[in-house]
Amino acid sequence: MAERIPVDEHARFVRSLLAPLGARPTERVRLDDALGRITASPVESPIALPPFRNAQMDGFAVRGADVAEAPVELPVAGEIAAAPGAPADLAPGTAVRIMTGAPVPAGADAVVPVEDTEPGDAGSVRILRGRAVGEYVREPGSDLAAGSDVLPPGLRLAPRHLAAAAASGLTALLVRERVRVAVISTGSELVAPGEPIGPGEIPDANGTALVAAVRAAGAVVVHTARVRDDVATLHAELDAAVDAGAELVLTSGGISQGAYEVVRELIEPLGAWVGSVAMQPGGPQATGVYRGVPLIGFPGNPVSAQLSFALFVAPSLRAIAGLPPAGTDRLALAEPVASVAGRRQYLRGRRTPDGRAEPVGGPGSHLVAALAASDLLIVVPEEVTRLDAGALVDTVDL
Amino acid sequence: MAERIPVDEHARFVRSLLAPLGARPTERVRLDDALGRITASPVESPIALPPFRNAQMDGFAVRGADVAEAPVELPVAGEIAAAPGAPADLAPGTAVRIMTGAPVPAGADAVVPVEDTEPGDAGSVRILRGRAVGEYVREPGSDLAAGSDVLPPGLRLAPRHLAAAAASGLTALLVRERVRVAVISTGSELVAPGEPIGPGEIPDANGTALVAAVRAAGAVVVHTARVRDDVATLHAELDAAVDAGAELVLTSGGISQGAYEVVRELIEPLGAWVGSVAMQPGGPQATGVYRGVPLIGFPGNPVSAQLSFALFVAPSLRAIAGLPPAGTDRLALAEPVASVAGRRQYLRGRRTPDGRAEPVGGPGSHLVAALAASDLLIVVPEEVTRLDAGALVDTVDL
Repeated sequence: MAERIPVDEHARFVRSLLAPLGARPTERVRLDDALGRITASPVESPIALPPFRNAQMDGFAVRGADVAEAPVELPVAGEIAAAPGAPADLAPGTAVRIMTGAPVPAGADAVVPVEDTEPGDAGSVRILRGRAVGEYVREPGSDLAAGSDVLPPGLRLAPRHLAAAAASGLTALLVRERVRVAVISTGSELVAPGEPIGPGEIPDANGTALVAAVRAAGAVVVHTARVRDDVATLHAELDAAVDAGAELVLTSGGISQGAYEVVRELIEPLGAWVGSVAMQPGGPQATGVYRGVPLIGFPGNPVSAQLSFALFVAPSLRAIAGLPPAGTDRLALAEPVASVAGRRQYLRGRRTPDGRAEPVGGPGSHLVAALAASDLLIVVPEEVTRLDAGALVDTVDL
Repeated sequence: MAERIPVDEHARFVRSLLAPLGARPTERVRLDDALGRITASPVESPIALPPFRNAQMDGFAVRGADVAEAPVELPVAGEIAAAPGAPADLAPGTAVRIMTGAPVPAGADAVVPVEDTEPGDAGSVRILRGRAVGEYVREPGSDLAAGSDVLPPGLRLAPRHLAAAAASGLTALLVRERVRVAVISTGSELVAPGEPIGPGEIPDANGTALVAAVRAAGAVVVHTARVRDDVATLHAELDAAVDAGAELVLTSGGISQGAYEVVRELIEPLGAWVGSVAMQPGGPQATGVYRGVPLIGFPGNPVSAQLSFALFVAPSLRAIAGLPPAGTDRLALAEPVASVAGRRQYLRGRRTPDGRAEPVGGPGSHLVAALAASDLLIVVPEEVTRLDAGALVDTVDL
């Protein structure tokens, strides 16, 4: 049996293998398609915000000097709506009715809210409360000057960012491309979910799991395949993945010590590392490069494959996609647990209503239903073989 | 000026208006499309997990009784791969080589890991360490019995849930339909983002903002429109929204005290409430029902529209979609703030590196760039007109 690599060393190695993916190509996407994407450069507004001087309230545009001593009655020269067109200049000693957002005419320098007025004689307005120059007037560029940056680079786009881009008159944004991933399940025992299973056959859970996990980590799946334990078929699918533009290939199965280890057989002669990591579940792991594309090989047990993705690949993909890392905590165990010396154990568990960590199911790497019923992983360090109830453990949110 | 409704009262009313949307119709979606959707019923596995007795390790299937006193040498009767087909029964006093996941033959009741063996004479295997009955054997149904629930109802589907469904041989799941929403911007001053703006015109930010906000809240947009201040056009778009299947109509603009209040003009005669809420920004608000569909009218100022959605509509939509509510906190102010008596102020702000709340931009409801630069709202209660630096305030994450 070959030496077992420490978990943190393997994690570092996978991270370094995926680091070049962080230098993303860029693409332009329409605002309607940009939610959750990451800006690739500073976004400049071609226009000032607001673009023109406009009223902050429904009321009357006036000269501040004309209303310095309220109450005062001014003839109403007309009405300005929030609508296309430039208003006529305001003559001294007059007021003009104005709607919120409507352009403040040249000559006016304050807006008196309608609440501070009442109708005067013969179509005039009585100003009950004076307003100083600038009051209730939004100056052009008071939110943002034309040509300034409305959004920074590296921003994960939320609705309010898209709103500011739209207000700037933009229709598309330059964002980072999503990482393109291929997911290949291996194993002669696998059938597509939904197909009848005969003796010795099981539905392939890893394809579904890894495709969803890649998406949840902000990347995109460009190729999927399920192959029997046949090197030629796997070879063809790896080529198809690279031809489809995959920047990262994930495989499951075929890397342990058995007789039909199709991934090992194919990639080990090409210089890949296929070995064992000091962890449970997920001991067998593989890393390599195929036609210039990083390949990460997970074990075939579905719990092992899912945890391997979460621990080794998701952190890099999430960081590239601007997503926060999985939450971690330190909780008291709800019950004692046992572990194996020399391997870091990732037990599946859930947070109890009183905030303790309770194991769910056993340590078996085939317990997919128990994993589905869990909401965290309980980390038992390599040197620990037993922990009592109440012991504090590190947990990782699923 | 009509009475101003308290914020919490308006929030309660909108929540009650949207409550019927919580009784969701259901739809079947393929596993690959189900990430993030909510299960509408318990999901039963038609098969046991695992479906047959299989090996947990690469090694040798044996009778536990034959290896009780190790070391012992057993003739190897063959090899069982993880592949389709049922293996022959294991004869007493023999071993069979077996791969992880392969069916354990009748007659065998334990698996000895390959690490605990070495090759024996004449094709036999030397068992170095005995294994008790059941060791390294996964019993059918040990993860989940056939016919049991593999997923509960009301679950927001993560990759591990889809994996368990796939392992159960399922290809689709019954989920809650997403809430179908229409978004209608009103205002003669609005042009589509990207179109040249003339005097008095601005790009429509509310359409983009509300479409993205609806999606971020887990709902789906089925109709969008941008209409000038013309009642007949708005009427036609409301009909188009309902005809498109909208279960909720959101409008922006046209509900304040001005002369061209197109939403007010149309819906007030139909019995809708158009009034004022004691808050800043976002004072003008409207609620009604159009052809049986709830209609929520927001003010046209883009900051007001976005905050109104976040405060009044997002909580209901997020709850229906199984999303957590917006995060809240209580932080010390980084600088003093002023407010207006009688209205709850929602100042835009951000969390400083040392965890205080720092206002961003002013209180103006047109400051879309300042909102984009913010990551929280600072709540100043109705009765407060000034808060000093260091005062504790409630904050709401954006």
